[in-house]
Amino acid sequence: MLIREMVLHPIAIADPPLRSSYGLHAPFALRTVVELKTDSGITGISETYGGDGPVAALEAARPWVEGMDPFRLAGLWARFNADAASQTGSVAGGRSQTYMVPGENPLDRHARTFAAIEIACLDAIGKAVGQPVCDVIGGRVRDAVSFSAYLFYKHAGGGGVGGDAREDEYGEILSAKACVRSARQMIEAYGFREIKLKGGVLDPAEEIASIKSLREEFGAEYPLRIDPNCAWSVDTSVEVGRALKEELSGGGYLEDPCAELEGMAEVRRRLLAEGNQTPLASNVATTCFADVPKAHGLDAVQVVLCDPHYWGGMRQVQQLSHLCEVLGLGMSMHSNSHLGVSLMAMTHVAAASPHLFYACDTHYPWQTEKDEIVEGGRVRFVNGCVPVPGKPGLGVSLDYDQLARGRERYNKIPWRKRDDEAEMRKHVDPDWKRVLPRW
Amino acid sequence: MLIREMVLHPIAIADPPLRSSYGLHAPFALRTVVELKTDSGITGISETYGGDGPVAALEAARPWVEGMDPFRLAGLWARFNADAASQTGSVAGGRSQTYMVPGENPLDRHARTFAAIEIACLDAIGKAVGQPVCDVIGGRVRDAVSFSAYLFYKHAGGGGVGGDAREDEYGEILSAKACVRSARQMIEAYGFREIKLKGGVLDPAEEIASIKSLREEFGAEYPLRIDPNCAWSVDTSVEVGRALKEELSGGGYLEDPCAELEGMAEVRRRLLAEGNQTPLASNVATTCFADVPKAHGLDAVQVVLCDPHYWGGMRQVQQLSHLCEVLGLGMSMHSNSHLGVSLMAMTHVAAASPHLFYACDTHYPWQTEKDEIVEGGRVRFVNGCVPVPGKPGLGVSLDYDQLARGRERYNKIPWRKRDDEAEMRKHVDPDWKRVLPRW
Repeated sequence: MLIREMVLHPIAIADPPLRSSYGLHAPFALRTVVELKTDSGITGISETYGGDGPVAALEAARPWVEGMDPFRLAGLWARFNADAASQTGSVAGGRSQTYMVPGENPLDRHARTFAAIEIACLDAIGKAVGQPVCDVIGGRVRDAVSFSAYLFYKHAGGGGVGGDAREDEYGEILSAKACVRSARQMIEAYGFREIKLKGGVLDPAEEIASIKSLREEFGAEYPLRIDPNCAWSVDTSVEVGRALKEELSGGGYLEDPCAELEGMAEVRRRLLAEGNQTPLASNVATTCFADVPKAHGLDAVQVVLCDPHYWGGMRQVQQLSHLCEVLGLGMSMHSNSHLGVSLMAMTHVAAASPHLFYACDTHYPWQTEKDEIVEGGRVRFVNGCVPVPGKPGLGVSLDYDQLARGRERYNKIPWRKRDDEAEMRKHVDPDWKRVLPRW
Repeated sequence: MLIREMVLHPIAIADPPLRSSYGLHAPFALRTVVELKTDSGITGISETYGGDGPVAALEAARPWVEGMDPFRLAGLWARFNADAASQTGSVAGGRSQTYMVPGENPLDRHARTFAAIEIACLDAIGKAVGQPVCDVIGGRVRDAVSFSAYLFYKHAGGGGVGGDAREDEYGEILSAKACVRSARQMIEAYGFREIKLKGGVLDPAEEIASIKSLREEFGAEYPLRIDPNCAWSVDTSVEVGRALKEELSGGGYLEDPCAELEGMAEVRRRLLAEGNQTPLASNVATTCFADVPKAHGLDAVQVVLCDPHYWGGMRQVQQLSHLCEVLGLGMSMHSNSHLGVSLMAMTHVAAASPHLFYACDTHYPWQTEKDEIVEGGRVRFVNGCVPVPGKPGLGVSLDYDQLARGRERYNKIPWRKRDDEAEMRKHVDPDWKRVLPRW
């Protein structure tokens, strides 16, 4: 089986005005759907980051991909790595990953591009051999993958524009009270059993109040985590950690409270000195394998967030699972705005990663049926989990009408790159800048 | 595809009187050949440790194996691990791994037993999907796997007894001169490009002379390594490291000169202080994943020896390759007395482990055609390498007549466990004991 053709589908999906320390989500999120058509008639699919950059990077890899045997992935990974190593170290333009949305770091581009190809190859292999992807890569260790209720502060509006506008079932969420309301809605709809709040948006006192209200509403059986994406100083991080000692215990964590491993390490030291064992998680200070032993050595991070989309695909996430196990670190999973193909990739790799004990993040509740590209409509959750399908490959196929509609939307809009900062300036505050630490 | 039946073939193979710090090889080495017969008519094979212990451990796993889907390996690995974790920590009887031949540590039994099943499952999968095993587990990164000329000091004799006795093409090797002669023979026959000497047998001065003679004979393009299996004190290790600074540089290493990570770390510190960068390798102080970060933290080991037979199979060796890469450690491969099925398993996992840069160990030259169980006779080397086959699975099949002869040999002999110490007492010195350090 050889890959005959790579087909790229850039699409846009309506996205609500979600807030984070990076700024504001634009009315549309960009994705790219990859199809690898093989000479045996089987097509492998994947979903990855959208816009000009990711599409150009995939286009650049076309000569390596077309004609390759999808089973020979390690050789392709070696090519990508050699190519990345030959680039200058200044490719990030001197900006630390801290300032970028995970998945946007130019230094990791090769890992993201390879991941999109690897996942589509694994889907093709699964279809060819009649096995679900999780069993192709070593075998499932669970039959259902747990996801968390991923709460955001947001402005009113469901995202999209004109005929592509979407209903806003959550409304404005800019207070602790609204936050609890949205959690209740999301848990009723999906059955989630863990809750994550994207913070770094409101005053820390209000975000502390949000977490405390969530604990009051749902009780200790719903582990809680908060992620301000480095919006806080070390002092503020320690204060929040102290205020939420009880609420973040029992399966929760404090994610990227402040910038840089050194800052995280200081927060950890100061909390531990008070007898506060709250684990610190990260997907900003640890985005590649070289970061992990460093983070471990400094005790800066106790839970590493994986993501097959930017860690180099499914087998690299399995390697991360193993590395975390050996080093005594926990592992959780990061998410971006995504549709059903990505959700299934996340589900399969989570099913085949033994050391993943936390519920995974997912933005899926913020997207809707209207934009779903998966045949048969949106992937269904059962008690907060996605059941691992028994079908070969990822277990989902593309709805080409929906894909065409996604592409139309993409062609209509001017965005070709996510820019949450510009969006904030446009809609909320003309002088807004990402400032770290903000509090 | 489900496994219908596990068939175990205990066999014995003639083994020359090789010496090491553990003692003396008996006239026969024991192996077990595993067949997993599936309901689709495909049979997966593997080769592992021999004798009562390994056979009993495999028998105990029979209820888990028969009826399982060979693709669901991670679930089986989790079962083995949970079972091992539930055993008491005293299973090693208080003896440190240092005193045992790698592959004999009771604490690692579950990893060895699982490995034998995993490799046979991967062979079955490869045959079912029409792919070589290296491509089933992620894809080859090389088309041929390099092995080293593995020299031993030995007494005269080819091994075996009576009708099963074997020709001794190498003769007695108990001096530097004989050592060079055997290297020449082996390199002429196989084309090896790296040389390993099993030391810890003669006075260190004679072993230093052996390495120096090898360097004189073959030059710097043949990297050299010596492995006394912990026979030396820290002082002696430093002295040998100092004497062989030049000879062990350029792709060579000093393997397990002394016992325990702390001892290795002291040797490293003292050599580094003299500007001697000779890497220290180990398969005695690092035999499981928990050892690796400890060894790295102490800078006690710079090259970890993998072995799919006792590290838990092929995917675990790939995990080790990745772990070594992330921690900046080198990786090489250990070997035991083995036949062609093991050689092919070593070849496939080496082909799919990107970070394996050293030539692998192999005892293969010490076994002969007469005992080979692989159809078509012994696996052929090309320029010291085993070419990665294009055939599905491991790429070799069983010669059932030869297997039956191996079983007959097994039934005729009294050994059911390797005991190099007893063998020394029987044939060389009635009072011999393994003493560490000996020098």
